[in-house]
Amino acid sequence: MAEAVPPGGTVGILGGGQLGRMLAIAAAQLGLRAHVYAPEDAPPAADVARFTRGDWEDEASLAAFARAVDVVTYEFENVPASVVDAVEPFAPVRPGRRALAAAQDRVDEKTFLNGIGVETAPFAPVNDAEGLAAALARIGAPAILKTRRLGYDGKGQARIMGPEDAPAALAAMAGAPAVLEGFVPFAREISVIAARGADGAVAAFDPGENVHEGGILRCTSVPAASAPAVQQAAGEIAGRILAALDYVGVIGVEFFETAEGRLLVNEIAPRVHNTGHWTIEATATDQFRQHIKAICLWPLGDPSRHADAVMENLIGDEAGAWRRLSAEPGAALHLYGKAEARPGRKMGHVTRLSRA
Amino acid sequence: MAEAVPPGGTVGILGGGQLGRMLAIAAAQLGLRAHVYAPEDAPPAADVARFTRGDWEDEASLAAFARAVDVVTYEFENVPASVVDAVEPFAPVRPGRRALAAAQDRVDEKTFLNGIGVETAPFAPVNDAEGLAAALARIGAPAILKTRRLGYDGKGQARIMGPEDAPAALAAMAGAPAVLEGFVPFAREISVIAARGADGAVAAFDPGENVHEGGILRCTSVPAASAPAVQQAAGEIAGRILAALDYVGVIGVEFFETAEGRLLVNEIAPRVHNTGHWTIEATATDQFRQHIKAICLWPLGDPSRHADAVMENLIGDEAGAWRRLSAEPGAALHLYGKAEARPGRKMGHVTRLSRA
Repeated sequence: MAEAVPPGGTVGILGGGQLGRMLAIAAAQLGLRAHVYAPEDAPPAADVARFTRGDWEDEASLAAFARAVDVVTYEFENVPASVVDAVEPFAPVRPGRRALAAAQDRVDEKTFLNGIGVETAPFAPVNDAEGLAAALARIGAPAILKTRRLGYDGKGQARIMGPEDAPAALAAMAGAPAVLEGFVPFAREISVIAARGADGAVAAFDPGENVHEGGILRCTSVPAASAPAVQQAAGEIAGRILAALDYVGVIGVEFFETAEGRLLVNEIAPRVHNTGHWTIEATATDQFRQHIKAICLWPLGDPSRHADAVMENLIGDEAGAWRRLSAEPGAALHLYGKAEARPGRKMGHVTRLSRA
Repeated sequence: MAEAVPPGGTVGILGGGQLGRMLAIAAAQLGLRAHVYAPEDAPPAADVARFTRGDWEDEASLAAFARAVDVVTYEFENVPASVVDAVEPFAPVRPGRRALAAAQDRVDEKTFLNGIGVETAPFAPVNDAEGLAAALARIGAPAILKTRRLGYDGKGQARIMGPEDAPAALAAMAGAPAVLEGFVPFAREISVIAARGADGAVAAFDPGENVHEGGILRCTSVPAASAPAVQQAAGEIAGRILAALDYVGVIGVEFFETAEGRLLVNEIAPRVHNTGHWTIEATATDQFRQHIKAICLWPLGDPSRHADAVMENLIGDEAGAWRRLSAEPGAALHLYGKAEARPGRKMGHVTRLSRA
């Protein structure tokens, strides 16, 4: 097995957004250095780390970056395979290629999950109008047409309530390969943030219960209202996914829970996850520190929770309420250092804590 | 009243050690930038902030630093008045001169405290052998002779068990002005970390109970074993000190508690404090975020505690146990990014959490 990156070592982070910023902070909390690579001029993560501005196509810059660090990770799942190719000769990439491949294509993702016995919504790949008609005939409406790749926060998605919605939905894909997913009537959405070490050890945080609005996460509450057996099953499914991918690092697994307590995986994200931000205040090893520990081959930390928590995203101009939130009893305010509060942009979050 | 430093603004920090590092992280968590000024080449805080290497005597560098930030604070109480002189024309310094003056000289500190009705150990300034003899005759032994200025972690101190120890104790002062402090028989040592906003609002964290070894803090436990009335009195004394200094920021107040529950202030530190590190995991606004909020003129956060905690310092080679500590149930490991584990050097800390 590879050697641990000891205190004083350097963690390379691909991507400079808020997840990269919080990963860099976690590295510093553990006595490690962070080095961020991103194409933007002054991304949020650059405030708290060494920073290289470089394009994803710039193989020489990527190689120089990789030579300057001890391990490379990423804050977004759409890292191109060519970037991994450029980096991997000089530093290990964790989580690795299998996790990225499984998460970058919705058809591959669901095929992988079903292959290890994990239930998902019914789905069918769609490339054209005939394919969509056939898929709709098999899966039925309501359903959601999504691009196979590069979707996030509800982008690249179109709802189909009946056959009459099919042409507009297909047009919304703009020619990109797509997948039709059957609509799952769910009682709630939950997610599990779990980590796996290179030694195979797995540590799952308690499931959070999520509310989305317009495709964007609104809030996550722990504990979830799910029955204890359902919560345990969610953690076990996350563990099965991690093992099947020979995964090293933190993963986010989003579930639909039906009224009967059945769990279907909606999607997996091979990275720290917005629905795990509550762990910063409510656990001893939050998801960011846990991810750094895992990719540096340190023993995983204890994921147990010492408080109840509700995390709420601050989207667009909601972060303008920082004065009120600064003083709110029990509230931990986080802002990401983004200059411009565009609509739909995640500007920060607030975690409201109470004794468990 | 001055205007708040809004999200996106820059906090200047004098000093680059672990307290500066944790202050810079807290600024980032609140969407602010941090800029550290320190004379060392690569101090711990430089990993997570913009960094200017400069000497304390370099007025031009200090002025350029101050022009680049919106407010200046510090991580150590021995900031020379000349540094404040160089910085203050360009950026406000918080906490201000009165707090620094009161904390930099042990005679001035105790005189100030007694003047506002806060009890301390009996004390007398000592400049020579005759003065020491007179002070010993008045205060009695055991007593402790300390340099008036620039002492920390038990340095510049000598215990006097009887008159025969006087010559060696005086020699240990190396000619520096000194103060003799009567020994206080105490049941426990506690400390209060409290913040005051520019609007006069005060927020005190629960008192911690401290154990020192060889003059260096070993651990802090919350809750302290003190009676509720004593805990409340400690918070009230901290508030009185803050008001008398017209203070803005976080202060650390160390107390001796006698067996009868009497509280005597041992010393005050006009900064975030080692005995407040437990707040990182056990409150919604830890001492670092609270200090940043106060000096940026944001409303203070809620200091209430959602967990019990025991913070233990990792001194010298104790940080070598990072693998074991990484995996310890309930333990939050912090390392400060210091390369060399010299004896007595604070390398990190671990906070052990349990549900309140």
